[in-house]
Amino acid sequence: MKVGIVGYGTIGKRIADAVAAQDDMKISGVLKVTPDYEAKVALERGFRVYTLPDRLDKFRKAGIEPAGTIEDLIKASDVIIDASPEDVGRDNKEKYYSRFDKPVVFQGGEDADVAEVSFNALANYEEARGRRYVRVVSCNTTGITRVLTSLMLNGIGIKKARIFIARRGADPKEHKKGPINDVVPNPASVPSHHGPDVQTILRNVDIVTMAVAVPVTIMHMHMAYVELDGGYTRDAVLEAFAKTPRLFLADVGAGLLSLAQIIEYARDLGRPRGDFPEVAIFRDSVTVRGGELYLMYGVHQESIVVPENIDVIRAIFGVMPKWPSIEKTDKTLKLITEGKRYG
Amino acid sequence: MKVGIVGYGTIGKRIADAVAAQDDMKISGVLKVTPDYEAKVALERGFRVYTLPDRLDKFRKAGIEPAGTIEDLIKASDVIIDASPEDVGRDNKEKYYSRFDKPVVFQGGEDADVAEVSFNALANYEEARGRRYVRVVSCNTTGITRVLTSLMLNGIGIKKARIFIARRGADPKEHKKGPINDVVPNPASVPSHHGPDVQTILRNVDIVTMAVAVPVTIMHMHMAYVELDGGYTRDAVLEAFAKTPRLFLADVGAGLLSLAQIIEYARDLGRPRGDFPEVAIFRDSVTVRGGELYLMYGVHQESIVVPENIDVIRAIFGVMPKWPSIEKTDKTLKLITEGKRYG
Repeated sequence: MKVGIVGYGTIGKRIADAVAAQDDMKISGVLKVTPDYEAKVALERGFRVYTLPDRLDKFRKAGIEPAGTIEDLIKASDVIIDASPEDVGRDNKEKYYSRFDKPVVFQGGEDADVAEVSFNALANYEEARGRRYVRVVSCNTTGITRVLTSLMLNGIGIKKARIFIARRGADPKEHKKGPINDVVPNPASVPSHHGPDVQTILRNVDIVTMAVAVPVTIMHMHMAYVELDGGYTRDAVLEAFAKTPRLFLADVGAGLLSLAQIIEYARDLGRPRGDFPEVAIFRDSVTVRGGELYLMYGVHQESIVVPENIDVIRAIFGVMPKWPSIEKTDKTLKLITEGKRYG
Repeated sequence: MKVGIVGYGTIGKRIADAVAAQDDMKISGVLKVTPDYEAKVALERGFRVYTLPDRLDKFRKAGIEPAGTIEDLIKASDVIIDASPEDVGRDNKEKYYSRFDKPVVFQGGEDADVAEVSFNALANYEEARGRRYVRVVSCNTTGITRVLTSLMLNGIGIKKARIFIARRGADPKEHKKGPINDVVPNPASVPSHHGPDVQTILRNVDIVTMAVAVPVTIMHMHMAYVELDGGYTRDAVLEAFAKTPRLFLADVGAGLLSLAQIIEYARDLGRPRGDFPEVAIFRDSVTVRGGELYLMYGVHQESIVVPENIDVIRAIFGVMPKWPSIEKTDKTLKLITEGKRYG
């Protein structure tokens, strides 16, 4: 399967590397709008770099001969992953994708109605099959969906989920964004978009979310309160998390006391870009009181959706069932697979 | 009433100024352990500066002639406000206060059992009367207690409160504390101490709290989820908050979009040290869905307990009933009194 990546920024460049690590798909090319250092990284990776028709000259002046335009990239691809900035994916759909008959995967920056179905590999892999437009949900929504799905797949029913998010204010490379020394309701209104967004996948879950932005670039932090439908034990919850792929239990006793230490662990593991695509659940925070579950977990906004973007390709083409795809993705991307159950 | 302040740091120096602004009490002196710039500020304010017996020489070498030792300060006072760092208040109780027959007020850094009763002016003013040892609860606990008490005083019953706190990591002057670019479970275990601490005052409230520390020095931010005992309207909740002293409704429409803007407002108002002793509730966040109330509010850790420390003195000596004391304190400290009901 030839995969074209439109938008080679924070998410796109990670997806490109992840696709390149698979043996059943390859990168047909990547689209960049600006001939900056990331374009040079793409060339060094051996990717063909395309651009928009009106940017060809700009690239040539920067010493990069484009492989062609976005239309050339679409023609050269079996599937497009659009990782453009918020709302640009929708524009691309109107201007370009609608004129071709190729499946397109959007990211969570786009509203749900850009696609026929919203996607999370653990939760609804099968629903992507044969679709033309699919949306991989955003980082926070992916984190919540994985945690709730882990419970449900293991027979732990959810009455309601109320989740309180301390969002990272900006990505590490975003030098103009804030806040500095401030906590910003994001938004002040309730619910934040994450709750309804989770419901595009887990349609029957009663969920409300609130979010504030904090002066952090490394990860989001969630404080979750979940009413369960019965009297489960803490051990049952921990066992569910332990065997669910793409969830990681971080132990305070092992020195994993904060989000920065999760990222330090990823760096020590030699992971590309110091990424941590697993949801990092603080084991010590997992608490069950009566029918109430409490937990804290970190969501690495730059990488959590990368494995989902690999699985969604196999899901759309129906070339592999859910669990084998998840396992293959996790192994090729060197996620933590010890103790995980794939099926 | 002659008030001695033991510990002239972040909280102590503010209480000293607040006492000095009253016509029914005055500062007998303040105790400093270090002859630093804050000791000089105390002298400039006209306060007599005492120190510990083994610090007398250190003060003299720094050019400050102490007014006496801690024992001299206790003898010169009708009541002591201890605003020492965490756990030091308990030590002072054993070493010094226990040998005198004067009432002592501790701060929330001490465990509840340091005192006979924990105190919040709105919630349990009368319980301090005639006590020898009283504890004004901590900043976050004071914020939560005010919000919940406002509801209850206005006939809005609470089934349970679940409150999620993004704590400021350090005060503005604390140059060695973190975190920087990190979110730290604080603690990772559930509940954080705030829930049980609220119950030292509101004994029958079902409350659980979780907290993380963020790279912010200006204020704490709370995201609160409260199950009410019936179908109240949003307007009823807002009316309760609007008329409750020491709560402020911040409007996004007025440009109050974040904690930093609350503090900027305090600075523009010309408030001493840019303090904001009111709980700053983001009006736009106040949401009622079914029997569930959601809100976000800021808690200014440096100043929120200052008015409580004035009221507690009157409460202990029984010289004034609750509402007149609260009103007198709010007016002398120039808190927002417009629309507030004192009684």
